Amino acid sequence: MPRILTVGAAQLGPIQREESRSSAVARMIELMRQAKANGCDLVVYPEAALTAFFPHWWIDDEAEIDSYFESAMPSNETAPLFAEAERLGIGFHLGYPELAFEDGRKRRFNTAIIVDKAGRIVGKYRKIHLPGHPEHRPDAVFQNLEKRYFETGNLGWPVWETMGGRLGMMICNDRRWPESYRVMGLQGVEMIVLGYNTPKHNPPAPAHDRLGNFHNQLVMQAGAYQNATWVVGVAKAGLEAGVDQIGGSCIIAPTGEVVAQAVTEDDELVVARCDLDLGNSYKNSTFNFAKHREPQCYGMIVERKGAVIA
Amino acid sequence: MPRILTVGAAQLGPIQREESRSSAVARMIELMRQAKANGCDLVVYPEAALTAFFPHWWIDDEAEIDSYFESAMPSNETAPLFAEAERLGIGFHLGYPELAFEDGRKRRFNTAIIVDKAGRIVGKYRKIHLPGHPEHRPDAVFQNLEKRYFETGNLGWPVWETMGGRLGMMICNDRRWPESYRVMGLQGVEMIVLGYNTPKHNPPAPAHDRLGNFHNQLVMQAGAYQNATWVVGVAKAGLEAGVDQIGGSCIIAPTGEVVAQAVTEDDELVVARCDLDLGNSYKNSTFNFAKHREPQCYGMIVERKGAVIA
Repeated sequence: MPRILTVGAAQLGPIQREESRSSAVARMIELMRQAKANGCDLVVYPEAALTAFFPHWWIDDEAEIDSYFESAMPSNETAPLFAEAERLGIGFHLGYPELAFEDGRKRRFNTAIIVDKAGRIVGKYRKIHLPGHPEHRPDAVFQNLEKRYFETGNLGWPVWETMGGRLGMMICNDRRWPESYRVMGLQGVEMIVLGYNTPKHNPPAPAHDRLGNFHNQLVMQAGAYQNATWVVGVAKAGLEAGVDQIGGSCIIAPTGEVVAQAVTEDDELVVARCDLDLGNSYKNSTFNFAKHREPQCYGMIVERKGAVIA
Repeated sequence: MPRILTVGAAQLGPIQREESRSSAVARMIELMRQAKANGCDLVVYPEAALTAFFPHWWIDDEAEIDSYFESAMPSNETAPLFAEAERLGIGFHLGYPELAFEDGRKRRFNTAIIVDKAGRIVGKYRKIHLPGHPEHRPDAVFQNLEKRYFETGNLGWPVWETMGGRLGMMICNDRRWPESYRVMGLQGVEMIVLGYNTPKHNPPAPAHDRLGNFHNQLVMQAGAYQNATWVVGVAKAGLEAGVDQIGGSCIIAPTGEVVAQAVTEDDELVVARCDLDLGNSYKNSTFNFAKHREPQCYGMIVERKGAVIA
């Protein structure tokens, strides 16, 4: 008997600078209700889903930077989302910038959580692969300042047994790195959920722009197949505060096939019934790691950060 | 000015059991001449290109097993290939089963070499990811006995400066594992060449059969993009000794795009002019490993072979 987890990829259109968190949450609740009406067990929202994606701007003022972060989750503004999820009996995944007080200091992470059908936060992940640059680039049409505003995540890539499956998380740029998937694959992950904010234009390499959607799917499809896991990737899409972002939210099977895909750059729900056992035949054959991996040959992957030309 | 290496993917149709090495070499020489006529610097042949792919059969007799291996390279039968390459001034990549005498004993590897335009063997690789099973499966329609006939490769994944580029090799099943590409990516590889023998039918998981060509391209496209390298994958294709194999030989750019692709399951040459500098903009931006990789989080990849469910 298939072990179905029905998932909704809840793409968000742009959130403009002046839009409040409460307004964004209202949009998310609307998508959550659609998801419930479509039989979803889990609804997946984008990275940093509550505001415009502020790492695209240089901000000097510490208080202004902090204003984009969440010090508590749920917060006053997100409490209605948790309440609605609990009322509907639906799980969700939410990305948000996190202000933490740890090791005696203020720390900032790009964070995501999984909330189960009872409204409990069952898993938290902090983004590991921060893209972009820490310095101001005033000549660029927009910034990519995640290396300025966030610390590298310090929670690894755990997986969680929840909603009948073994779930993991990554965030945006993590999806381009096969290591992210593999660490979860080595824990038997069955579904990876992730959100992204991906501009159509890449200021340091504009020649890549025409390939944004292709690369987005390629890396998630390969990660899904090579680890025999579902992957659910969800965009904040469209023209937001002057930066145009790809959509292309999609749900990818452990076969590597895209089984559902958004066709707008606005708020849009796409749904798939995901059999969590679908990956088993891969995990037991081609990708039986215990039989076929050769980690004694992989040392360089951890011993070396950058490429070294001999 | 672009740094062009023109490469020919020299797909081979089936080599039947009774076909001699000399006959196979004659076919390869014909493809080599086509490659030269098309301006190629390098021609890439499949895995185990000199005979039918014997790991599909159970063989008891040691001498019969050995008869599929090469004790010398060049050998009497392959010498004409080396001679023609030197005469034409063209490099080549060739896969062959290798009988080695090392550490005081006979050893068998699934091996490949790169030969430069002067006819010198400049690099040797021994396949690391051996697929299949060591035991006889008499009920299967064919065997996949690489784990019986070969030892795991013991030369790692070096890269070589040759023919104006930084080249690396993998073989067949290696291409499904992102670790294979990454180890070479961490050495700044610019072109990975590989051959494969991939049956259309997967006896332990027939539900995967419909996806053979898709998976073949997916893994090579992702490996190319994620490491900003050219990938040249070359099949032995078609119905060989009762086993039908996929074709789909292709040349993939560092963008992840397929730029040339075979359309038959027979002897067929496809050519691409490969700018070895094309990957630089990726190596310097999205995939600037020194800036963006986080190896302190990748430990599990080398510490663990099989998946562990907590």
